[in-house]
Amino acid sequence: MSALLAQLNRPVPIVLAPTGMVPTKAMTPHVPVTPEEIARDVAEAAAIGITSVHIHARDDEGVPTWTRDTYERIVGAVRDAAPEVLVNVSTSGRTWTELERRADCLALDGDLKPDLASLTLSSLNFISGASVNAPETVRGLAQIMLDRGITPELEIFDMGMVNVVNVLRKQGLLPGAIVANLFFGNVSGLQATPSEIGLTVDRLPDDAVWSGAGLGAFALPAQAIALAAGGGVRVGLEDGIHLDRGRTTLATNPGLVERIHGLIDTLDRRVMTSGELRGILDGTATW
Amino acid sequence: MSALLAQLNRPVPIVLAPTGMVPTKAMTPHVPVTPEEIARDVAEAAAIGITSVHIHARDDEGVPTWTRDTYERIVGAVRDAAPEVLVNVSTSGRTWTELERRADCLALDGDLKPDLASLTLSSLNFISGASVNAPETVRGLAQIMLDRGITPELEIFDMGMVNVVNVLRKQGLLPGAIVANLFFGNVSGLQATPSEIGLTVDRLPDDAVWSGAGLGAFALPAQAIALAAGGGVRVGLEDGIHLDRGRTTLATNPGLVERIHGLIDTLDRRVMTSGELRGILDGTATW
Repeated sequence: MSALLAQLNRPVPIVLAPTGMVPTKAMTPHVPVTPEEIARDVAEAAAIGITSVHIHARDDEGVPTWTRDTYERIVGAVRDAAPEVLVNVSTSGRTWTELERRADCLALDGDLKPDLASLTLSSLNFISGASVNAPETVRGLAQIMLDRGITPELEIFDMGMVNVVNVLRKQGLLPGAIVANLFFGNVSGLQATPSEIGLTVDRLPDDAVWSGAGLGAFALPAQAIALAAGGGVRVGLEDGIHLDRGRTTLATNPGLVERIHGLIDTLDRRVMTSGELRGILDGTATW
Repeated sequence: MSALLAQLNRPVPIVLAPTGMVPTKAMTPHVPVTPEEIARDVAEAAAIGITSVHIHARDDEGVPTWTRDTYERIVGAVRDAAPEVLVNVSTSGRTWTELERRADCLALDGDLKPDLASLTLSSLNFISGASVNAPETVRGLAQIMLDRGITPELEIFDMGMVNVVNVLRKQGLLPGAIVANLFFGNVSGLQATPSEIGLTVDRLPDDAVWSGAGLGAFALPAQAIALAAGGGVRVGLEDGIHLDRGRTTLATNPGLVERIHGLIDTLDRRVMTSGELRGILDGTATW
């Protein structure tokens, strides 16, 4: 069988990113920000079928926060509502850059310990400003995840970040499963074209479990190309609050999961269970 | 004639980057840091043949500085020693990020006004730390260059920065000639592979005048691929102080210019004169 056909036979990891740092209740009533709202969206999405959930925390005013106790309440509610789903916490440096704050949620323990945590691999610009992830911060976060037994979810926004994957691996900071999210359509990043997506995927390690995401109106082309190339997908209101390019209809998290299931079915692929991803993370299975 | 053959018939812009911010006299006695040393290297390089020179300023201790009076002395010395060569000043934010400091050298006037100035198009990591170029800083520098009639030399380290070229152009901030340096081999940036160089060039505007540069040992592969693809090159101690991959022999700026001339001759191409680039910048000629 050709490599592509074999890749299309792999199950599709679906990463749900329900909240993010940008959407507010004023922008859309559908964005979940409290632990209860996030857990409810995850449970509804899990009933349709997702593999993991990428969590950002908000304080009581709905403003992004890094504090461990907020993450504790959210992870607890999600574990109660959807015990199977793998939990991935954000260590984003978009609003605060200090390693201590970004790593605070990695100290959660026992059943509340996250399965994965995001690791953005270099500095970049978003349309609203710079996101600084200096080399020592990236290495510092990777080391803490390694010490804690938390798998990094490698966040890749540009070609150079793929090179960082290989460098960190050579340095011993990524000895386990390689799980990556590839983002397309950021104004200062990779665009959602077949050539850019294709080259990015070609330069990833062969054993990487990867999902394609698109920002705003680029979600659908990025997801369709990723699915057609044998990859996984990321969906959710973090990446865009509208269902359509014309920005006329507000999306919901379960609605986005429902739609991606339709695309996955049409393309003759199937969703990866959380158990299958768990097997990859603990080294007992491959993609 | 095929597009590639036509591109190979274009003259090769050679950008000399003699100094940069990193090499010190302790690392190599050949790096020019005073106005006199820089002017002497530029004159020697111009006698062999270069198109433009990219200048970084150092203070009396050899430490990078942004002050206009230092740039004034260097540009004056270079204009005296090599009046034909186009002068390109650095607005780097690697050590200081404030717009005012970075734009200080753009205020030089009369014969001392630079022909070009560097414009790094997004934030990125170097191996030693983050280089922050927030969106408002990039737009601010572009606006000042536009107001002053100085052509930006667009510095591209990753794929996303190519997209920024198109965005800034659409916003009216790049109405004139598009001149770009593409850097390959930075640990968190594009690598010097045919596929990454090729895709970067494919995504540039058709009328862009571009030069390929490689960091350290990646200089030669980046230059050779750029030349074979119809592009220009950047050479100089800023990008690497050794002549060879084994790092046994220290390079000199004239020696690097001499070597690239050999490669250009072998590939049946010819060097672009400063007058030819001047014609492109003032809109009376195309590449």
